[in-house]
This record gives sequence, C-alpha cells and structure tokens, in this order.
Amino acid sequence: MAEFSFRCHECGTCYAEHPERLVCPSCARTQQPGGVTRGVLEVILDRLPDAWPQAPPWSAEYLDAFLPIATSASLPRLRVGGTPLLEGAGLRRELDMPDLWLKDDTRNPSGSTKDRASLLVVAKAVEYGIETIATASTGNAATALAAVAAAAGLRAVVFVPASAPRAKLVQMLAYGARVLPVDGTYDDAFELCRSACLELGWYNRNTALNPFTVEGKKTVALEIAAELAPGCADAMLVPTGDGVIVAGVAKGFADLVEAGLIARAPRLIAVQPEGSPAIARALREGQVTVRPQPGAASVADSLTVEVPRNALLALKRIRGSGGSAVTVADDAICRAISRLARSTGVFAEPAAAAALAGLEVALEHGLVDREERVVLLVTGTGLKDIPAAERSITIPAPIAPRLDAVVERLGR
Amino acid sequence: MAEFSFRCHECGTCYAEHPERLVCPSCARTQQPGGVTRGVLEVILDRLPDAWPQAPPWSAEYLDAFLPIATSASLPRLRVGGTPLLEGAGLRRELDMPDLWLKDDTRNPSGSTKDRASLLVVAKAVEYGIETIATASTGNAATALAAVAAAAGLRAVVFVPASAPRAKLVQMLAYGARVLPVDGTYDDAFELCRSACLELGWYNRNTALNPFTVEGKKTVALEIAAELAPGCADAMLVPTGDGVIVAGVAKGFADLVEAGLIARAPRLIAVQPEGSPAIARALREGQVTVRPQPGAASVADSLTVEVPRNALLALKRIRGSGGSAVTVADDAICRAISRLARSTGVFAEPAAAAALAGLEVALEHGLVDREERVVLLVTGTGLKDIPAAERSITIPAPIAPRLDAVVERLGR
Repeated sequence: MAEFSFRCHECGTCYAEHPERLVCPSCARTQQPGGVTRGVLEVILDRLPDAWPQAPPWSAEYLDAFLPIATSASLPRLRVGGTPLLEGAGLRRELDMPDLWLKDDTRNPSGSTKDRASLLVVAKAVEYGIETIATASTGNAATALAAVAAAAGLRAVVFVPASAPRAKLVQMLAYGARVLPVDGTYDDAFELCRSACLELGWYNRNTALNPFTVEGKKTVALEIAAELAPGCADAMLVPTGDGVIVAGVAKGFADLVEAGLIARAPRLIAVQPEGSPAIARALREGQVTVRPQPGAASVADSLTVEVPRNALLALKRIRGSGGSAVTVADDAICRAISRLARSTGVFAEPAAAAALAGLEVALEHGLVDREERVVLLVTGTGLKDIPAAERSITIPAPIAPRLDAVVERLGR
Repeated sequence: MAEFSFRCHECGTCYAEHPERLVCPSCARTQQPGGVTRGVLEVILDRLPDAWPQAPPWSAEYLDAFLPIATSASLPRLRVGGTPLLEGAGLRRELDMPDLWLKDDTRNPSGSTKDRASLLVVAKAVEYGIETIATASTGNAATALAAVAAAAGLRAVVFVPASAPRAKLVQMLAYGARVLPVDGTYDDAFELCRSACLELGWYNRNTALNPFTVEGKKTVALEIAAELAPGCADAMLVPTGDGVIVAGVAKGFADLVEAGLIARAPRLIAVQPEGSPAIARALREGQVTVRPQPGAASVADSLTVEVPRNALLALKRIRGSGGSAVTVADDAICRAISRLARSTGVFAEPAAAAALAGLEVALEHGLVDREERVVLLVTGTGLKDIPAAERSITIPAPIAPRLDAVVERLGR
C-alpha cells in the first residue's frame, strides 16, 4: 500500500488524490485554451523501496513497490514493461560506442511505451470503481488505453479528430474501444473529452493532464537503472512530442536517486523532429515555456504537436538533468529506421528511430561522448507505420529462378 | 555444451550434425518434387536438465540447458521468447473456461513464434562459421530470420515469389535482409534457395527442412510447462500451416516428459483454415500423409499452404499426443481477432486468432472440456496484417463536437 500525494510542479502545493483532481486548481487559473497545461501534478510517494525488488519488473510485487496503487490486485493482468535492454552489438561497432544500450519498448503489449502509462491509469480507475476511461488521441496513447482497458474489462472511449488516419483506428477498434471521430480539431476532441468525463463520471486519461501518465511511464527508467546497477547511464536519448515520456523518465530516475538506489540521473536529451521542435527551441532559447508551432508536421507522427502540453514540466526536468535537446530531419529519421533494424534487429516506428537519428546529431554537437554509457529509448514498433519504413528501403527487381541470376545479383 | 544427434523420424537412423545435413539421405530418396519433406530429422539431446533452470527463459543459461548448442556464446543477443502466459480474464468469463491460458507469442522481437526457430538456426550458423543464412518464404519466417540475423551481424538472403505482397517485404528489407524476388512459384523459390545454399556455402533455414527450426520452436512449450508446473496443460490449440510449429511444440513437451519435469504432454489440437486443411483432413481420414491442396487460400496467409511440407512429422506427433484437428472459416478467424483483442488485450494476426476460432469449434465438437486447462498459442501480432483486422471492425461515423452528441452515441 503506497501512500502518496500530488504536488504541483509550478507552485509546490500538495493535494490528496481524487479521481477528478488532474491539475493544480490554483495554477490552472492561468490555463490558456489549447495552450500548455498549467499546474501539472507530480506524484510524491511517502515511501520508496530501499533495495531493488527481486521480482521481475512486470510483477505485482515490483509495481506495488514503486507505483501509487492501494493494492496490486487493481493491476490489469497484461504484462506491461519488463522490456529488454539490448547491447545492439552492430550499432556499437558502427558508432564506436562500446557502452551503448537500447531500451526496446517496442515489446510492450500494444507496441509502445504508452502502455506503461495506461497500466497505471487503468489500475487507478479500478481502484476508483470507474468503469469508463476516456482520452483524446489519434495514436499510441489511445491504442495503449484500449489494450490495457480490454485486459482489465473496462470500457475505453477515444475522441479522435475525424481526419485521423484509418489504419490507426483499426487497432484500437479491434481492442473494443468506443471510438468517437469528432468533426473538429485535436483541441476540439481534447476539450470534448474533458467535458464528457466531468459530465458523465468517466476517468480522464488525457495525456499531460492525468498525473498518472507521467508516473506510469517512469517504470521504463526503473528498469534501465535496475539492469545497469550499481552504475547508471550517463545520458539517455528520449523521443519527445508533448513531453510526457521525458517527464516520466525523469521522474523514475528522480525516485531512484531519492531512494538511494542510484547516485545520479543520466542527462536527458530530448529528440524532436525539425518540423515539430517547440521544446528543443525553448531549451536553446532559454525559455521556460514554448511558442506554439502551427502546422507542425513530421513523418514521426507520434512526435508531431503544435503545442507540447507538458512542456513546462519537461523543460524543467531536462534542464534539471543537465540535459539538452536536438532536432532531426525527416530523412534522417527514415534512414535511422533502417540503420537501427539492420544493426540491432529492432524495428522501430519513426518516432522511436528518431532516438538514433538524435544520437547522430548529439555526437556531432558533442552533447555525448562515444565512451559514455548512453541509452536510446526505442518507444514504438515499426509495424505501426509500414509506409514510413518503406521510405527507408528499396524493393529489388525480380530475378530469374536460376543460380547464375543469384550469383549475378549477390556475388559469390 | 549439449551433445546431440539427428534422428530420422521415419526410419530411426541417427546422424551426427553437419551444416549440410538437413534430412535423412536414405528416406530423402523417396522425396517428390514439391511434396512433403521426406526424412525430416529431429534433434536428440544426450542429456536433459533434471530440474527447471532458475534463470529466465531468454537467458543464455536456460537456452544452453535445453538447446543443441556448443556454447551459449553463439546465441544472438536479442531477447527471443520469455513471452507472457496470460489468464485472459474476460475470455475465461465469456467461454466459461476458468483454466484457459494464452501464450502471447506476439511479443517476440519480430512479432511471431518464428523468431524462436531463427534464434537457434542463427546460433548454429555462428558455430559453423557460416556468414550467410538463406530461406524461401514470403512471411514471418523470413522476417524472423532477417531480425535475428541482423542482431547477430550475419547476412540473411530471402527468396520470395515475385508476387509477394509489398508490405510483407518492407519489414524484412528494413532489417537488412537481401531479398531476391524470384520470377516463379514458391516451389521455384524453395528449390533455388536449396541449390544456392549448396553451391555458395550458405546455411539453409528452409522450414520443414532445417531440423533446428522444429527444435528452436520447442522453447514455447518449455515456457508454458515451466509456468504451469508442477501440473501441465490438458490441451493446446496450435495454428497449423506446414506443421513445423506443432512439431516444435510436441518436441518441447516430449523433452520435458523424458526429463521427468512433466508427467505427460497436452493433447495438441491443430487449427487450420477451411481453405487450407490438408493436415486436418489427413487426421480425419486416418492417413499418414497428406493430399496436396491446389489453390489453398485463406485470410490467414501464414497458414495457407498447398503442401504442408512437415506433414508427416506433424501428423505423427499430433496423434501421439492424443490430439486432433479442427478447421475454421475465414469469417470466424476475423471475428476471433476482435474477440481475442476485446476480451484479453492481445491483438493477433489472422493465423494467431485462428487458435481462438479453433477453440470455439473444439468446444462444439467436444474435443475439449470447459473445465480443462487449455492453452491457446497466439503465434503473431495483429500489426502484421492491419487489412485483415479491418474486416473484423466497423469505423464509426463522426459526431459533432458537443456533449449531447456523445450522449446520443454512447448513452449516459
């Protein structure tokens, strides 16, 4: 039984948990419609483990030790997390980085890091006795909610802009989510989700709003640190869109520092597409908030946001880690899909391969050293976006069914 | 260091291992072009563990204990297997089967059970010092080879019929496989692969030919039995195309019976599409071999074969387990994709969802009892075939961005 409270990262006020308590009411008064979320709350646990649990990271015992749940009985029975930390021998050689690691989060149930957030949000809904969880999203967050809610026997309602790509809807519909295409923008869907939750008593999983999304994603940092213990990583490349994953990673390492299980957190290096660079630009310019990026666009759709709603917390945590940010071109992202798959056997979606593209830039800019222990967070599987992968390869021409044609094509 | 030999399942002759020793030379004399493989060899280990290894199933220690490798140093550093055995609470309730389990093999690196075969084949190529591994395939087997070979730094060459679906080629090309579209049929590709391997010194992974494919796939049975120990399953539903997976599952349980780690193997129930039913038909008719099925076709492309090349061994092992087979319609397979995802959070490709469709038939036919401990083998992820999943869902019409529209659609 983990006791905890919510603490506003802006004003520091603490609050008791409540299903409708998503942000700090005081700081939320400064909220602009469609702007960055004001008054984002972090979870502060009263007690942290003073030793690594021996149970595997997807076990009830492990999660109970680190997450703000009343009982592990509320956890959905779907194995989330416990993904491999890989050496990626080929990539180590190519980059001359002998201590490079890949955290392969493509191996989560619905294929992305977002499952970690949904695991905790769904567990909290079970505790609260709420049967419907809603979110506005067009992508991995909605799919993750749909998958985990299905495993728990809860109902997921997903608000998407009516223009959402058809293929993305198929997976969440297969999981049985109630999908509501909204005639309007993402902001319309986001606001409609919020009012529906308040009016109908549903639980709101909106990202950068529900504090348990950041808290759930912290498990990826716990797992990395546990595998690398007693040391830790020097730096970690984190694909960044609205800033929730990077904040979750930071929270995990912060908890471990506080628990005395690691000496210090790695530098967090946010990777953003050149077409959606709001957080990277704010870091470069020394701003505490972001300018919106109308018409943000990238092949890495999971990283493409006009307003990164969790920017305030993300900027604070990246800076606090001594970290930085890089931007990467779409072409570099597509090349990184192939390079990562060829050299490690890990097939990533564009947003995830951006971690490797970002490492290439970070090396150029001297933000990481080749001797350092560096972790790439690979956030989602390439199977989610086959058309993007197709941009990184060429389908060869047919050959005649004869041995000489094979030799002519490939040599002896 | 595991000592082992090859034994022909037809004549019982034993052979020492050799990179070019794929089948029993004596029985292979009866081979018909394009027919079932004659003289398939099984691996016979001299010594099996007399207790469950405590290490996790993807660890070198575990694999070294059960697999015919000289040293665990030859194993590619990609976590294969160790996939979850899930309770699927919702499905248990719906089917009134309190002891139903799902082996979620969608969580392998390239998204299918085939990764298990490739892990061992690639490890053997490393031991033999062969740098190129080839296979004829259009689907999961080729992708699995491409992924595991990439992780090991070996070259994968894939022979595919030139008519192979474009989307399927993208993943294997991203992993860096050298793909050779062959102007001809699957049989042409299969034969060209064989002659290229002999002529060019490549290692042949062709399924139902290389004995390590069956042996590698046995790890899925080891994991299931370890989790259910000290008991085991009563029955297991296994999606079946050419018969390699079902033979691998049987081999795993057989090794465990011989080791004294389980008392008896579960009944194996092969599930085949109605449009590709050769093994099921042979079982029903009491035949020891199969009739080819020209024009075999199904939404479950991974199960669609005109000639199941591993049929002789598969038939023997299914019968030996006291098992049977069922056939399922394409419509039932598509419905099972949704049902499985909705009730468990596991999103499966058609071939994998066929396990659930097959369970429904097996219950009707009295082949399994609702009280029994039954395992469904979910062989591959639904992300591999989004168009098929789309057949099982309906994309809802848009709503206006207003609360009353939400209430009208979903109720209060």
